[in-house]
Amino acid sequence: MKKLNLLDVGFLLNESRETPMHVGGVSLYTLPDGVDEQVFLTDLAELLCNVDEFQPPFGDRLKTGPLGLLGPVYWEPDTAMDIDFHVRHSALPQPGRYRELFNLVSRLHSTLLDRTRPLWEMHLIEGLQNRQFAVYSKTHHAAVDGERSIHLARSMLSSNPADRLFDSPFSQASGDRYREVLEREHPLDLSVEELHNVADILKARLDTGVNIYGALKRFTATWMGRGGALSLPFYNVPRSSINTSVDGARRFVAQSWPFARVRAVGKAFDGSFNDAVLAMCSGALRRYLQNHDELPEKSLKAMVPVSLRRAGDLDSSNAVASITADLATNIEDPIKRFAAIRASALAGKEFLQSMSPAEAQVFSTALQVPGLLTASLGLASRIPAFNTVISNVPGIAQPMYWNGARLDGSYPVSIVTEGVALNITLVTYDKNIDFGIIACRRSIPQAQRLIDYMEQSLVELEVAAGLVKPKVKAKPKAKPASAKKKVARAKRATASRTSK
Amino acid sequence: MKKLNLLDVGFLLNESRETPMHVGGVSLYTLPDGVDEQVFLTDLAELLCNVDEFQPPFGDRLKTGPLGLLGPVYWEPDTAMDIDFHVRHSALPQPGRYRELFNLVSRLHSTLLDRTRPLWEMHLIEGLQNRQFAVYSKTHHAAVDGERSIHLARSMLSSNPADRLFDSPFSQASGDRYREVLEREHPLDLSVEELHNVADILKARLDTGVNIYGALKRFTATWMGRGGALSLPFYNVPRSSINTSVDGARRFVAQSWPFARVRAVGKAFDGSFNDAVLAMCSGALRRYLQNHDELPEKSLKAMVPVSLRRAGDLDSSNAVASITADLATNIEDPIKRFAAIRASALAGKEFLQSMSPAEAQVFSTALQVPGLLTASLGLASRIPAFNTVISNVPGIAQPMYWNGARLDGSYPVSIVTEGVALNITLVTYDKNIDFGIIACRRSIPQAQRLIDYMEQSLVELEVAAGLVKPKVKAKPKAKPASAKKKVARAKRATASRTSK
Repeated sequence: MKKLNLLDVGFLLNESRETPMHVGGVSLYTLPDGVDEQVFLTDLAELLCNVDEFQPPFGDRLKTGPLGLLGPVYWEPDTAMDIDFHVRHSALPQPGRYRELFNLVSRLHSTLLDRTRPLWEMHLIEGLQNRQFAVYSKTHHAAVDGERSIHLARSMLSSNPADRLFDSPFSQASGDRYREVLEREHPLDLSVEELHNVADILKARLDTGVNIYGALKRFTATWMGRGGALSLPFYNVPRSSINTSVDGARRFVAQSWPFARVRAVGKAFDGSFNDAVLAMCSGALRRYLQNHDELPEKSLKAMVPVSLRRAGDLDSSNAVASITADLATNIEDPIKRFAAIRASALAGKEFLQSMSPAEAQVFSTALQVPGLLTASLGLASRIPAFNTVISNVPGIAQPMYWNGARLDGSYPVSIVTEGVALNITLVTYDKNIDFGIIACRRSIPQAQRLIDYMEQSLVELEVAAGLVKPKVKAKPKAKPASAKKKVARAKRATASRTSK
Repeated sequence: MKKLNLLDVGFLLNESRETPMHVGGVSLYTLPDGVDEQVFLTDLAELLCNVDEFQPPFGDRLKTGPLGLLGPVYWEPDTAMDIDFHVRHSALPQPGRYRELFNLVSRLHSTLLDRTRPLWEMHLIEGLQNRQFAVYSKTHHAAVDGERSIHLARSMLSSNPADRLFDSPFSQASGDRYREVLEREHPLDLSVEELHNVADILKARLDTGVNIYGALKRFTATWMGRGGALSLPFYNVPRSSINTSVDGARRFVAQSWPFARVRAVGKAFDGSFNDAVLAMCSGALRRYLQNHDELPEKSLKAMVPVSLRRAGDLDSSNAVASITADLATNIEDPIKRFAAIRASALAGKEFLQSMSPAEAQVFSTALQVPGLLTASLGLASRIPAFNTVISNVPGIAQPMYWNGARLDGSYPVSIVTEGVALNITLVTYDKNIDFGIIACRRSIPQAQRLIDYMEQSLVELEVAAGLVKPKVKAKPKAKPASAKKKVARAKRATASRTSK
């Protein structure tokens, strides 16, 4: 039995009806030419259920002792695994647009996972227009993080549309095969086992389990001293309608942008791709808050998770630390705004790099503790640790296929927490960036407008960088399809040009 | 603000992830000839959302004070009512059989309602075969009981297929109109207000709120003395695989039987319709337990809710008491089994009739208290108060239409509780009895077999009563359609015969 580390248990302890702690994703696929949708989806469902032995954590359920979640928590095999409970077949009502898909995903993401079973569900969704189908999956954050999810998705995909898989991505066989490929590509430095033992390291410094808050406080204080001019949680964080008490209902929207556009903005301002993403989101949030007449004088702060996972490491469930980025939403000039964001992100990264991976994870866990306290006291909306989460998960840089069905896009569906009613997560895929925005339905009823504002913000940055000429009025894009279709059109244009 | 009575609050206190406390129903409709499904369903959704003012409890949410659910609990208007959250549009995957419908309903019924909003959802479900569509609704048991749900359904239905409604059944206008009709038909004796004030009566006899358990114990003891040879909760209740710890996932199955068949069995044995229903269920449970090699030596006991609602009373949320019926599952001979069931049900009814409605409800609430205690101590599966629930809700005795769409059947979806993994609820409609069986997915993985066993049990009773000749092998029916189609065919035959 594998023991859960402190961060993983935190996701269980912190979960309530109002704040489910599962992460998910929606993938859009196009059916291969000539196949019948029903036959193809039935075959996929059978493939998903074709498991002799599950790879962790998909066949494991939680096991606690007499102290419940406050004592040690383990994964144990579910001896009565009921795969039909986990793999589900759903459909969209007509007319089967992305709007109907987003509605269904919003609902599916609002319900809690069953804690008496392995903590995941996967939904095959039919009824989309244009021979597309969708897969929505959800897994408890105590069991996987975003990068682990990408590994799972990658293990069932192939760059070759002719490839066919016959075992389930949830099976040990599939995991072993994928691990072999990965280890060939990125040999794992096995001496760095400390990452797996963060909880043990932490425990060794504690007198007793009950003294944990006090000890974490000492950890935090030590590291805070090293901080300097760095943005840190709770420090100078303004209040806004994004930082309210949340309930359990969600709104999900998604959209793709060409990677090249965002990367060009980063380069133009001598920043990273991630800086450009933060700047694009910052401009959108600034517009959203301005239009609601509530732009705070102080700048919004974003929690930006940073992966500590070594290449090839498939075993850690959550190898994540975080920095707090200043989004500079109080700066009107987009060039100065970008510079402020870049400086803040750089300081955060340098600070994390000064620690070992284990220290960084303990640090990030420690910083969550005041958050846990304010959340459980109902103070998170009054004393926010940060305003929103912007999470950038590296994906796959080429077109991929699932048994011949082309993956058109892959949109993350993340977590909303008490006091942080909005989460923006993005995955790079092929030539796109796929953004998934999840929001509390009550606190942010117009989440879909953020999609328009992000396009406007990107155009503003492009104009400021001299990459495009200013238009009289920026024209917002509507749905993932429109962005993707443009890319597809652009690609077709390029292809026909180069093939001549 | 209306205060919740003790029984209503009990449904909130007793709720957990594993035991949601909402009741629901699935209605099957046939689209009117010539209409387009999408247009018709979009119009229905618009009609459902067309509300100026909500009638209670559909626009109200819970309000508690500093003691939470342990203090007084009220309904208060939800000032930010978000009707699109409550009225939902769903679809079935192909091929759209009842199997796919039951799967979807099982899932929808497994998730908790959002406690920060009015406690109901209604799903319009498209994608069924044969021009049918379905409506699944769920409402918290703290807000409505089965009979109140029937009133709501009835208020949106008409016996005239040409009738059209333009306001939502959730609106005050619709409620007022329906109330007028009902009061003309069944004048309400307004002096019997005690029913609404059960909590007050109870409170008047208590010294303090915290002493409630002790006081209820005295109530119980007093009434127990009156009991005689009556079946009472906890007394002589055997253990079985139906009486286990439950988790949150459900299995739902449904089936219709002709009312006339079951009524004939009751008459043949000089019993009531309800006795015949209990006997039919008893035979099915006996078969189920025999086939699992676990038929207990002692007879199973069923909790049978009894309505205390006066005709025309639309305001009480839960006007329900209950009797404990001996199902005589240990008696092989169907005639003797029927006699034992009848005697036990009669004793229970006489016992309830010796009390005022208020006393009966307090008594039933009081009897739930030990159940609440064993449930919260995790002992419900070891000390079951009863083995299952069999609930008979009187419905509408003629064909009904919703804006021209014929109601084909109306199947209740009730509650599974800790230690009671199976609930059988039935509604009479037109010439049928519509049974809805809800079970814990893990404890009763083969719930669908109960449908076959119920048919076999009914045939056994019919043979014993001399109503039909014994067949070499009883042929079970498959799905609601088959029963309904037969009835429809029989009715068409009758109609064509009488019209000649």
